[in-house]
Parts: sequence; C-alpha cells; structure tokens
Amino acid sequence: DQPLLVIAGPCQLESLDHAQMIAGVMAEACKAAGAQYVFKASYDKANRTSLKGKRGMGMEAGLEVLAAIRAMGIPVLTDIHDADQARAAAQMVDVIQIPAFLCRQTDLLIAAGETGAVINIKKGQFLAPWDMANVADKVASTGNEKILLTERGVSFGYNALVADMRSLPTMVKTGYPVIMDATHSVQQPGGLGGATGGQREFAPVMARCAVSIGIAGVFIETHQDPDNSPSDGPNMVHLHQMPALVASLMDFDRLAKANPLRV
Amino acid sequence: DQPLLVIAGPCQLESLDHAQMIAGVMAEACKAAGAQYVFKASYDKANRTSLKGKRGMGMEAGLEVLAAIRAMGIPVLTDIHDADQARAAAQMVDVIQIPAFLCRQTDLLIAAGETGAVINIKKGQFLAPWDMANVADKVASTGNEKILLTERGVSFGYNALVADMRSLPTMVKTGYPVIMDATHSVQQPGGLGGATGGQREFAPVMARCAVSIGIAGVFIETHQDPDNSPSDGPNMVHLHQMPALVASLMDFDRLAKANPLRV
Amino acid sequence: DQPLLVIAGPCQLESLDHAQMIAGVMAEACKAAGAQYVFKASYDKANRTSLKGKRGMGMEAGLEVLAAIRAMGIPVLTDIHDADQARAAAQMVDVIQIPAFLCRQTDLLIAAGETGAVINIKKGQFLAPWDMANVADKVASTGNEKILLTERGVSFGYNALVADMRSLPTMVKTGYPVIMDATHSVQQPGGLGGATGGQREFAPVMARCAVSIGIAGVFIETHQDPDNSPSDGPNMVHLHQMPALVASLMDFDRLAKANPLRV
Amino acid sequence: DQPLLVIAGPCQLESLDHAQMIAGVMAEACKAAGAQYVFKASYDKANRTSLKGKRGMGMEAGLEVLAAIRAMGIPVLTDIHDADQARAAAQMVDVIQIPAFLCRQTDLLIAAGETGAVINIKKGQFLAPWDMANVADKVASTGNEKILLTERGVSFGYNALVADMRSLPTMVKTGYPVIMDATHSVQQPGGLGGATGGQREFAPVMARCAVSIGIAGVFIETHQDPDNSPSDGPNMVHLHQMPALVASLMDFDRLAKANPLRV
Repeated sequence: DQPLLVIAGPCQLESLDHAQMIAGVMAEACKAAGAQYVFKASYDKANRTSLKGKRGMGMEAGLEVLAAIRAMGIPVLTDIHDADQARAAAQMVDVIQIPAFLCRQTDLLIAAGETGAVINIKKGQFLAPWDMANVADKVASTGNEKILLTERGVSFGYNALVADMRSLPTMVKTGYPVIMDATHSVQQPGGLGGATGGQREFAPVMARCAVSIGIAGVFIETHQDPDNSPSDGPNMVHLHQMPALVASLMDFDRLAKANPLRV
Repeated sequence: DQPLLVIAGPCQLESLDHAQMIAGVMAEACKAAGAQYVFKASYDKANRTSLKGKRGMGMEAGLEVLAAIRAMGIPVLTDIHDADQARAAAQMVDVIQIPAFLCRQTDLLIAAGETGAVINIKKGQFLAPWDMANVADKVASTGNEKILLTERGVSFGYNALVADMRSLPTMVKTGYPVIMDATHSVQQPGGLGGATGGQREFAPVMARCAVSIGIAGVFIETHQDPDNSPSDGPNMVHLHQMPALVASLMDFDRLAKANPLRV
Repeated sequence: DQPLLVIAGPCQLESLDHAQMIAGVMAEACKAAGAQYVFKASYDKANRTSLKGKRGMGMEAGLEVLAAIRAMGIPVLTDIHDADQARAAAQMVDVIQIPAFLCRQTDLLIAAGETGAVINIKKGQFLAPWDMANVADKVASTGNEKILLTERGVSFGYNALVADMRSLPTMVKTGYPVIMDATHSVQQPGGLGGATGGQREFAPVMARCAVSIGIAGVFIETHQDPDNSPSDGPNMVHLHQMPALVASLMDFDRLAKANPLRV
Repeated sequence: DQPLLVIAGPCQLESLDHAQMIAGVMAEACKAAGAQYVFKASYDKANRTSLKGKRGMGMEAGLEVLAAIRAMGIPVLTDIHDADQARAAAQMVDVIQIPAFLCRQTDLLIAAGETGAVINIKKGQFLAPWDMANVADKVASTGNEKILLTERGVSFGYNALVADMRSLPTMVKTGYPVIMDATHSVQQPGGLGGATGGQREFAPVMARCAVSIGIAGVFIETHQDPDNSPSDGPNMVHLHQMPALVASLMDFDRLAKANPLRV
C-alpha cells in the first residue's frame, strides 16, 4: 500500500502564475504530510451548464502551462473531451482524465488508452459502480492497464448527487486503484439555474470517509478565492485549508492502511 | 396544434433493405393513422455498455442508407457523436439528434446548430427538465431555433431510470416542441451486466401517458425481431405491433389536443 | 370495466358545512360526467411535518361528519392511524384507507381487513410497486379481498417524489383495482421547511396520464381555497376546477377502457 | 467528546439465553475496546415485508428478557410501534427507539418522549436529514431532550437504499447526538421478493466512514448465525467479527475526535 495520492488543483487553468502558485502550495503540503501529489487543472470546460460559463484558456495554451508545472517536478493531470485531443495531451501530461459525462464514449476511451498515459476515468453520474468494469475494459483493450477509477457522486433526484461509499470497495474489485473525488460529489448540478451549485463544506467529509476505508487517492479542487473563480466555485476548497486537510487525511490514510477492510 | 410526430425506426442501421422495410411499414402505419413520420436509425452506437456490443455500419455507409430512405419521401433523423460529424450528417438527414450523455457538450451542440438542421436534444439521464433551457440556448445561440427536446428517463438508483411526466410540460415552457422517448425511458442501463436491459412492455405505457397530456411527438424504436437485434433489443417494440400502437396513440393525440392541459 | 372512480375531498375535515359543500359539488360533478364518486377527508393528520401543523377535528367528531355525508347517499373514505381505530371507523365509512407511511404495519392492515370494509392501501414512498403484493396479502389474510392499491409517488432524492407510471400496470397484476393519487404524488415532502410543499399545477397531469392507461380510479384532494387550507394546500386542486377536470378525465377514461393496454 | 457508543444486538429477541450470550460477547468486546455499549433487540417486528416473516416473542415476554439483560448491568434499547407501548417499555429499557417508518407519527413520538427515557429516532427512508429537526421537536415538546437521531439510509430507486454521509453532520446541527445504523443502511428492502435482502459485507464500511467523521455512536445488528436468524439475516454482522470491528472502530473514533471536522 502506497501513501495516499492527492490529485488537486484549480477547476480550470487561469494563468501560468496561478497554476504555479497553487501547484507550489499543494506540492509542499503533500510533501510535508507524506502524500503523493498530482496537479490537476482543465484547459477547457467543454460542458458548462450554460453558454455564459467561462470555458478556459484552450488546449494549446493550457498544455503549455501544464508542461511548465511538470517542469517543476510535479506530475500533471488534465481532462480531454475528444479523441483528437488524446495524443497532444499525452505529450504534456502524466494522467489523462475522462470526464464523467463521457465515460462511455468508446472512441475517447480507446484513443486515451492508446497514448500509454495513465487514464483516470470518472464514473458517470448515471452509472452503477459495477458498470465501471465494462468501461475500464474499453481502455484495457488497448493494452494499457494504467487505469484509475474515480467516484464523483451519482444522480439523486434533480439537481443533486449523493456519494455512495459502497462504490469505492465495489470498484476496487476491478483491480484498479480507486480515487474519491470529494469536490464534484458535493456539486449541485444546475442548482444555481445558470450554473452548478455546491456544498464546499462537505468536501472534507467525503474525503475523510473515503480515506478511512482505504483508497488509493483523493481528488480535490482548490482555489485561493473560490467564490471568484471561473467555475465550480461553490464546491472548491479554499487553498489555505488544504495543508491541514491533507495532513489530517494522511493520519486517516495511515490508520486505514494498517487496518484494511475486506469487502 | 399539429398531429403527433412519430419518430421511429431500428436502434441501429443494419442494411439498406432492412431500413427500407421498417421505414415502409412505419410510413404506411403513420399515414393510415394520420400521424407525421420521421425515420430514425443510428449509424454508430458510440457509447455501448461494453466493447462487445456491435457499433453499427459507420457514418459513411450509414448516411447513404439514410439518404436512400429520404429518397422515399420520408424525413430522416440520426444522432451524431462528435462536432466533426455535424456537417456531413446535415447533408443527408433532416433532424440531427444529440445523444443524452452528450447533451451538455457545448461544441457538439453548436456544431449541430450551425448546420441549420432541426436539432433533437435528448435530455441527459442526469439532468432536471428545467436545465434543458440552458442546453437549448447553446443551440439557439447559433441562430438555429429549430429545436426539439426529448425526455428519455432520469436516473433512479442504479441500473434504472424513471420517466417523470412532469418533465414534459416543464420543457414545453421553453417554447420548443417536446418529444417523449418511450423506448429509452424503459431501459435498464447496464442491467444485463455486459449490456443494457429493458422493459419493452412498458413502452406503450410511456407513449400513451405522454400523448394524453398533449405533446409534439413520440420516439419509439422498433424492430421486426427485437430479441435478435444488435442493440436495445430488450426495449424495442415489435414492428408488427406498431400500426395498432400508432393508431391508438392518434386517438389519444386528438383527444388531448382538443382538451389542452395548461400547467 | 366500470367508469372511473373519483375519490375526492378536502385533505382534512374542517366542519360539517364545509364537508357537505365539497361533497355536494363533487357528487354533482361526478354524476354529470358519469364518474363514480367517493368523498374523502381525514379526521386526524397524525404525521404532520411539524407540531405546528393542524391535526384536525379528531376521530369522534370527524366520524360524525363522515356519517352525515354518507347520509347524503355518498360513499365515504377516511384514513386510520392505529389498529384501535379500525372498528369505529368501519361503522361510519365505506372505505378505510391505510396511510403510505404505515403501509407495512401488519397489525393495522389486519385490523382494517377484519372490519370487512373496503381497504385502500397507499403505497409507501419507500416501496417498489411489486412489493405491494406482500402488503395486500396481509389484508387478504383476513379473508377480506376488497382491496384498492394507490400510487402516490416514490422518494426521488430529498424533499421530492416522482410518480412512476409503470407502477400502475405493475400493481394491476395483483388483481386488485389500482388508484392514482394525483395530489400526493406532486407533494414536495418537507419542502417548505416546517411544512410540505407541492405542485398543484401538475395534479391534472398525473391524473390524466394515469387515466389514459386505464385505471380504476383517481384520488384528488380539493378545496375551495387551498392556499388557506389547514394542510396540503400547495397540492390541492381548486374546487372550482374540479367539474371540468372530472369531465375531461371521463373522456380519457372512456377512450382508455375502449383501448385496453396489455402489459 | 465521549467514546463511541455501540448499540448492538440481534435484530429480534429469540430467547433469554440467546440475548444473554450476545449481550455478554458485546459487552466484553466494547469494554476491551473502550467503547460504550447498549444492547439492542426487538420484541416485535411489526412491519415485516410479508406475513410469512417471524414477528418475535411479543412485548410482555420480550421486556422480561430485556430486563434480565439490564440486570447484567448493560443498558438496553428496544423499539416500540404504538403509543400504548411507551410506558411499559420505559419501565424496562433505557432507550426507546422509534422505527424509521413511524418517525413522523406524532402521537408515538410524544408518548415516547413523555416517558422520560432516552429516545432514539430512526430517520425515515423518505426523509431529508434536515427534516429531522421537526421530528425531534415533537419529542422535545414533552420537555424530554434526551434524543438520539439515527441515519439508516434513504430510498434510492426501488429495493435499494443509499447512506448519505452528509446526513450525519447535518443532523449534528440539531444539537442531538447522531448515530449511524450500519446494518439497516445496507438493507435491500423487499429485495428478496418476500423478504428484505442486504449487503452485510458493507456494514463495516458504513460504520467506519461514519466514525471517521466523528459521531456519537454506531448501531450494528449482529448474530452468531445470521443466515439462519429470523429477520435481517442478510445484513447482520457475524458475532465473531464484532470484537475486531469494535476495536478497529475505536481507533478511528479516537483519531476522529482528536481531529474534529467542522461543517
């Protein structure tokens, strides 16, 4: 069992300085706490609730920023939205992420798998955890088994999600490492009318529950000023809270991994 | 109020003969009953539950089949899965459909809208009906307001959907015609392990409920031998049942349109 | 197939005059439209959202009011909340109703069944439609098979219900007549904080959908001034709208029963 | 912050010997681990899925068994199903439990509250966590504020529940201690047709998640031979696993209470 992997960063790339600042704070916090760290940010928000939402800096500029973070010695994750983007992204990042809405798009999964990068697949809000085995098989059919599976909440009535903790050990049965996305599982999709709401205050609850049962990693979006960030503000965690959160999660990670739960 | 629009055909294109046979039966049934008719079939099933599911004949061959149906004087609908496909599809079909999983992908919606074709947007299994106003706005931003909105069930626990009839009058408030997809709203996603199950016997229930409250159209997948069809077999209606079903729906359509419900 | 049964009245009894006024309007409306009619009202709201909600006039006074309605030649339904109340209620009413929250309480079901009255069981918000067979068996074990089963919505996330139209033909398979409760299926439980909200505008939608697939009856709560009624105001239908609603439902009832759906 | 309270015992009372055996094992396990312990068992299962399910030994005999457990120096909890039972139960037990289906029955809550016993209210499968404030107020109106609130899963489609971990800190805001029922939250209501199924393997997952975020107690049903127990077999934990489970939960309890999460 390896120490907890923390995938963290702003929802979307804003500038090189901004990315470096957040990556720096997070890398230091993870190092201090003994966690592994991967920087996460999106170059394009391709499925905003409404047209008014900002989409981001675009692939070309975004991949350059990510390459600069990688040059700091920090592994990098970003999400792609089209099979065409897989190859370019794989040249600049360590982990390619498949968005939840797109998790059953066969061409996208295969194009991502064929790059040989690590592939993190978000579980669709409309999928049962056991259905992720078929999804992972699509990537694995390329010969690439460097797959991560991420829980990010499941539809629960309108404009709401619920995080089912049974999902984590269920997905573990695939043999792939499992990640808990503590930020998106507290989204309230469409909950603000023209944008998605969220319950930032519950993100640490989701993270701690998941870590306590022994998982490979957590995914947490963070920002120095969430309320003024261009996307997912209501559910991003304040950056200044992250060092203490990571340190506390590591305490639970060590205890959980010393006391493995067999399901 | 126009007579009910019936969008019907096999889940996926199998051959020219097969498409012509089904289109012929349905066109005659709709004409006899006084319904409008659009032939529907997919050239590619891009998000099968598992890799083992057949994907179909592909875009090029498929669009040729659809063009042949159109040459019979029958309007044609197909779904696209990537913004790149919009232009080619629009040359051959009357209605471009946006799949439910992809209903928030901004680039796809805009590329479809820009073709000037009628755009039928399936409501995501993860979306509230009022959230479709933002989705339709993405298409309408292109100046194309020939938009249809389709209900196809919403996530209800794991491997299950439920069709909320309130969704139909709620989406009507957008001003766009609303369609009830009676076939996919009785899917059981992933319910067969490596494939999606379904409850074909309830498709006529969904259709009749929706028609009785006065909607623009119904969407029903049909096949002469559903149990041996390459996809969505468990929820497709037997072709031999369609003439009577359409005739009966028209009776309810006339009564409903003579007694409009104001919500 | 008999004509549609309309079970209607105010959520709770307010006074003799009030009950007679509503029963009179409804009886006339149903007679004019060719529907069967049963007056419904509760003498005690035993499970209000909060203590501040009015409970009603109590069993003794309430049963006297119901007896007076019955003396007008109108059959009467009321709900009981405790096995002890079954016998007294059965002396004054034609139909004893089991509340949804209590639909699995064995003693209540058996006490009700033993009276020999017609028993209308509301399906719990937490129950699948096929689970009602076990519930009905509890009543039938007393030898009383005069059972009605009522759909009133199922939990769908927090503070929300959804009405699944598949529930109606599923419950029909028990062999007992099935009723659609159009009023409670549009409740928003706890949606107002200290009280339950509702979407009155959708009650006719629920009723028409259900009637169009051919059911035994509808249940609709109504009041001359819902916004000032002591309970369920947000989802009760205005009394002045009921004659037209019943007349229109009868048109759909006749069409549906002439075109039975086999599931 | 006090050490974790463990409420545990068989679903239903079977005999004095059986109750004493389980109470003895659990009391020793809790003492060894530093947990508080309350014995739980029901004298009547008043809402079985079907009539064929065994109901138990009845109130009179059951309360005598519970009194005998109490005479061992072990506090005792049982559930009541009718306001009439409150007084008798309160003479023999320390904690009166209100079943989830009955959690909005005003008379039952008030009768229980008036006894002065500790009242543990199970949250209904149909209720949002914030709605429990109104429920607790009904008990508190009697002047008795010795209230516990228990999460036991919320309806999630048909025949299924999901445990929402946000519920725990939400209910904590009422000011009352919050308990996680790890056994019933993994029920599959009606999932076996004539009985309720369950996923015993996930009970420790639910318990650990909840304890890790810092709660007052856990509720776990246990049996030496669950597969042959008269009720809730599929979700009861094997008794022989309980000492290790409690010991491990105490490790998480200490860590959680040293690192309180503020929501």
